[in-house]
Amino acid sequence: MTAPLVSGVLLVGLGLIGSSLARAIRRHGLAGLVLAHDRDPAVMARGLELGIIDDAAPDLVVALARPDIELIILATPPGTFPALGAALGPHLRADQILTDTGSVKRFCIDALRPHLPHPARLVAGHPIAGTEHSGPDAGFAELFAGRWTILTPLPDADADAVAKVRALWEGMGAMVEDMDPDHHDRVLAITSHLPHLIAYTIVATATDLEEHLQAEVIKFSAGGFRDFTRIAASDPVMWRDVFLHNKDAVLEMVQRLFEDIAILQRAIRLGDGQTLEDLFTRTREIRRGIIAAKQA
Amino acid sequence: MTAPLVSGVLLVGLGLIGSSLARAIRRHGLAGLVLAHDRDPAVMARGLELGIIDDAAPDLVVALARPDIELIILATPPGTFPALGAALGPHLRADQILTDTGSVKRFCIDALRPHLPHPARLVAGHPIAGTEHSGPDAGFAELFAGRWTILTPLPDADADAVAKVRALWEGMGAMVEDMDPDHHDRVLAITSHLPHLIAYTIVATATDLEEHLQAEVIKFSAGGFRDFTRIAASDPVMWRDVFLHNKDAVLEMVQRLFEDIAILQRAIRLGDGQTLEDLFTRTREIRRGIIAAKQA
Repeated sequence: MTAPLVSGVLLVGLGLIGSSLARAIRRHGLAGLVLAHDRDPAVMARGLELGIIDDAAPDLVVALARPDIELIILATPPGTFPALGAALGPHLRADQILTDTGSVKRFCIDALRPHLPHPARLVAGHPIAGTEHSGPDAGFAELFAGRWTILTPLPDADADAVAKVRALWEGMGAMVEDMDPDHHDRVLAITSHLPHLIAYTIVATATDLEEHLQAEVIKFSAGGFRDFTRIAASDPVMWRDVFLHNKDAVLEMVQRLFEDIAILQRAIRLGDGQTLEDLFTRTREIRRGIIAAKQA
Repeated sequence: MTAPLVSGVLLVGLGLIGSSLARAIRRHGLAGLVLAHDRDPAVMARGLELGIIDDAAPDLVVALARPDIELIILATPPGTFPALGAALGPHLRADQILTDTGSVKRFCIDALRPHLPHPARLVAGHPIAGTEHSGPDAGFAELFAGRWTILTPLPDADADAVAKVRALWEGMGAMVEDMDPDHHDRVLAITSHLPHLIAYTIVATATDLEEHLQAEVIKFSAGGFRDFTRIAASDPVMWRDVFLHNKDAVLEMVQRLFEDIAILQRAIRLGDGQTLEDLFTRTREIRRGIIAAKQA
């Protein structure tokens, strides 16, 4: 039997992403030991009950002091990063690698780096995978398989740390791409943050309708609306943090969207069918690209 | 063996909906004969090849003259209804029932009724089911099962005609609800038309990005965007017609959406996390309602 990639991993946060990591790391034998910390003791207890972690780590500093902990993965909402950075940072050893799964990269890196005695050991990352469900029961080992994970190491990152984090994701079946953190935030603003913002909005618009209409909206949601409700059922705190901490890119994309809705609005008002049909034909092409890229 | 619900049915349009009807009607033995007309001869030929219809009906008037045709179902985009009404209407017999599957009801009814010698035999309808795929190969017999179909007969409709159309949908496994056509158009504006409008817009916004960003949008679409591209891959002509012919309700919903986006935009700009979290928590409830209603 070959040695695992790392002797021990400490997961911080055991929600959808953290618990999926625990399951995938164990399934693929990527760590000799999987420890998990969560600010909610019940969640750690659930992780033990589910048998997806080797042990709970109620005290982060104690867990970090274990010589076998080689890798620390933060899987909590971005808003927790400043406090986590301050709490963890000073205790990190030069042989430990710090990574994360935050949906915004510039903010997460800036929140962590000032606290790190060995900033070259930080390899920030973001798996482009998830579901609308939350908590340790929602995770599953296959969540990252066949999906992209973006790593955003800064130019000064240790090559061996980057290689190890990459190997971890690839070991779980993910495809890995390196990217500049600011560029990541811009790409994700359109592929993920704007869609969530709109889904939340459209569902909110529906909840403001007259009450009898609201019941019908639920009943007849199969016409397109239900897909939005699925997206709009994602973790509220995580998404609050994403919008707060990728403000500029999100607001730019909202502005562009406003302009584009206005074009459609005008075409509908004027009865300009050609503009509508042309645009709808063009968007079909994008779907074909996604199917061709096997990301459908 | 019990007699079929109708001796013969004539389907007009053999795309996703029409071909699904053909398959479901035959599977459940609801008609002794399934004839199909499509303006594209290749589509009729494909229907015969697939074995989902008994015969093609290249000439509508000839098909209508068959004594065994008891039910005519229009399954074409709403924009075709004025011409279809004019072509079919004068030839309809008092023993024949006319129904349809158009996504907007007021326009479709108004397009048909003036041409009908027996307007009480019109029972307009709309199945709340579909996929992003088009054409006779895309249909399947289970499309309507467990989904709602809304019927919008006017007060003067013949009770036996309404009962027969209802029995047809229920025979295919659908749940049926009666509704006023204008009310239908308003409910669907929010549950279906607005989601499609937004999905088309957001995908269009992405196609206007710088080219290198566009490739990344496709690559990393799993973060939410791909769900929008699926919706935005729906039939361009059908959707053009929906927006053109449900103009008032759609424009009202777009206006409400604009206001709601503005609230989120402002919360993001001001860093008002509480407003964001409250709203995202509220939208989660709607999803729970849809799951409870078994329409997820």
